[in-house]
Amino acid sequence: MADRALVPHFEVMKILHRVAQMRAAGRDVISLCAGEPSGGAPRGVSAKAAEVHASGMPLTYTSALGISELREAVAGHYRRWYGLEVERDDVAITTGSSGAFMLTFLAAFNPGDRVALARPGYPAYRNILSSLGCEVVEIDCGPAERYQPTPALLDAAAAAHGPLAGLILASPANPTGTMVSRAELAALTQWCAVNGVRLVSDEIYHGITYPADPQAPDARGVCAWEMDRTGVVISSFSKYWGMTGWRLGWALMPRDLAPAMEALAGNVALCPPAPAQLAAVEAFSEDSYSEAEAAVAEFAAIRRILLDNLGRLQWGTAAPADGAFYLYAELGDQLAGFTDSGDYCRALLEQEGVALVPGSDFDAVRGSRSVRLSFAAGREAVAEAVERIIRFQESRRQT
Amino acid sequence: MADRALVPHFEVMKILHRVAQMRAAGRDVISLCAGEPSGGAPRGVSAKAAEVHASGMPLTYTSALGISELREAVAGHYRRWYGLEVERDDVAITTGSSGAFMLTFLAAFNPGDRVALARPGYPAYRNILSSLGCEVVEIDCGPAERYQPTPALLDAAAAAHGPLAGLILASPANPTGTMVSRAELAALTQWCAVNGVRLVSDEIYHGITYPADPQAPDARGVCAWEMDRTGVVISSFSKYWGMTGWRLGWALMPRDLAPAMEALAGNVALCPPAPAQLAAVEAFSEDSYSEAEAAVAEFAAIRRILLDNLGRLQWGTAAPADGAFYLYAELGDQLAGFTDSGDYCRALLEQEGVALVPGSDFDAVRGSRSVRLSFAAGREAVAEAVERIIRFQESRRQT
Repeated sequence: MADRALVPHFEVMKILHRVAQMRAAGRDVISLCAGEPSGGAPRGVSAKAAEVHASGMPLTYTSALGISELREAVAGHYRRWYGLEVERDDVAITTGSSGAFMLTFLAAFNPGDRVALARPGYPAYRNILSSLGCEVVEIDCGPAERYQPTPALLDAAAAAHGPLAGLILASPANPTGTMVSRAELAALTQWCAVNGVRLVSDEIYHGITYPADPQAPDARGVCAWEMDRTGVVISSFSKYWGMTGWRLGWALMPRDLAPAMEALAGNVALCPPAPAQLAAVEAFSEDSYSEAEAAVAEFAAIRRILLDNLGRLQWGTAAPADGAFYLYAELGDQLAGFTDSGDYCRALLEQEGVALVPGSDFDAVRGSRSVRLSFAAGREAVAEAVERIIRFQESRRQT
Repeated sequence: MADRALVPHFEVMKILHRVAQMRAAGRDVISLCAGEPSGGAPRGVSAKAAEVHASGMPLTYTSALGISELREAVAGHYRRWYGLEVERDDVAITTGSSGAFMLTFLAAFNPGDRVALARPGYPAYRNILSSLGCEVVEIDCGPAERYQPTPALLDAAAAAHGPLAGLILASPANPTGTMVSRAELAALTQWCAVNGVRLVSDEIYHGITYPADPQAPDARGVCAWEMDRTGVVISSFSKYWGMTGWRLGWALMPRDLAPAMEALAGNVALCPPAPAQLAAVEAFSEDSYSEAEAAVAEFAAIRRILLDNLGRLQWGTAAPADGAFYLYAELGDQLAGFTDSGDYCRALLEQEGVALVPGSDFDAVRGSRSVRLSFAAGREAVAEAVERIIRFQESRRQT
């Protein structure tokens, strides 16, 4: 086995395995682990996919960067949401955002390059970069920075580790849900420009946001290309349109990287899944946008239930959950009697059949005191889980 | 742009672009470039996909290595074809064989590791390995070795370059179609065992073979796991089942690599496309096998047409085309008046509207005298292309 294959074992994999075992044994388990909407794709997308397959048409390789019609449709989405003029040739359709990250990292970074990202953060960034031989520089981001990197933190990181080649930014972020404002994003892109650092902006949760004023200009998230077009913007059909298993995403490619990304795509992936591409054109219909917005409204209602119950949960500091569908919170006093949040999660699962993800999967340094609760699973599931968690914690205090 | 992103530009991409332009302008172009069957998936697979999508069921992430039912079905395929007892947990479902190569290379090889492969060969092996920082050692394989590596050639390569970490073997091979016999594969696996070299066996064209005796024991190709289980076997739904655009393949994982491959899969890809997985279970029905065999019989008939016309084509040495659906041949005297086979291909395309791939895409050293003709495009297309090529060559001799 190659040294670079030594990616960390995730606690959540053990938990998901145990969930499957318990369900197989007839236990009623509520899993709030997965970051995926339960509602599925817009109806028009599913219908188009059914039609494509029912026709029996041969589904052969597409162009490496995807079919023109879908690349055009994605470009149109940037006009609609951000007022940005994006061209078809700026868009690479990819096999999920995962495929976009792999292509981007290969095209933009050499082995040994230092790439910065926030801790806590999505573990796959770190693990893909490590497996490609890049040096991952974790920026310790706490509540004071709303869990997002700042120019000052990046300066400090460069001083401590040496010049950076890249910065991965996620807004809304996983697991914290926090977003950067237009001014913050402007400062970060400016810092990247001054320091010759390639920005990779993960915008897969755009549109799943909970602004005080939904009509506010930046309510859905600010796109990095609103600042300049030197960074790579990555997004996906998985979250806003509820199409996780379809494995379809995209990247907006800066002009200097586009030829390399196209050549790499043809070698590394050949092309994204053809049936999903044909169907996903329908994601940009008015009906599909309406369905997606209805799903977001439902997430907002579930988030409200959670926030209203934070007092009863008696946890510690919780991240703001500006967007995405995660509550990331320290367990505070509820950690008493447990070695760490992994221990808490295992006990909660066994006793009450509620599965959360321990924070150590997102933050190897401080995450052992935190949990991530995904509220994408649906309203009843989350409401019931809250009651079970409270009962669990009360029972532990009594023993 | 990263240095590692400097993968070669493929001549075929220029040709495909020109094909699209010419067709848009109303020209009748026969493209014999793509390595993909024109018939599409088995009917049962398409019907299952249509049913899954019509149901509107949410298609969420699957396990990183795929759904159990499909992993079981693939294991059963090894029992059926090779009499091999393969277990569900040996099988990783991947996003095409491309996904399997990426996972395997990441899990098995470190940056700087030397990995050997035959030249001519499938260019993506070389380019993925290079982009991951591996040193690619090309083994010059000519007609004398039937374009396949041998222990003697590998010894010579190790002596010249230093110890090897891996060997990529493809049988049937792309572009030559040649296959290794059971004895040759045994000698190669033995050589790998003695030299501590990891074998990666590309078997995506298994089943698409043209044996003198279809009932012969190894008629469909010999599986590397029939020798020992230390290598990685890679295969796909793309070729035998005609599902190129679906992006679904698999790997048989040696026990020592399986944990790393699973962890990497979860990070790099999350999971293979869920709808394709659900549908592909139907690829292993008796009806689907029958449809695939009928497609192979059709390839055999088209291959016969080509071989019967080799004299009229007046090309040079042609590789045997034991399997797959390619004729790889030197142009011989027909190259007179052209700078190389790329020049020949461009002229043929402009004059007669027939698209072939120049050999330089598969062999940077000797390929400039060769072309690859894919006969997966169908009987009429290939028969008509042969006449056009002969007419083209005659017209050139007259000028």
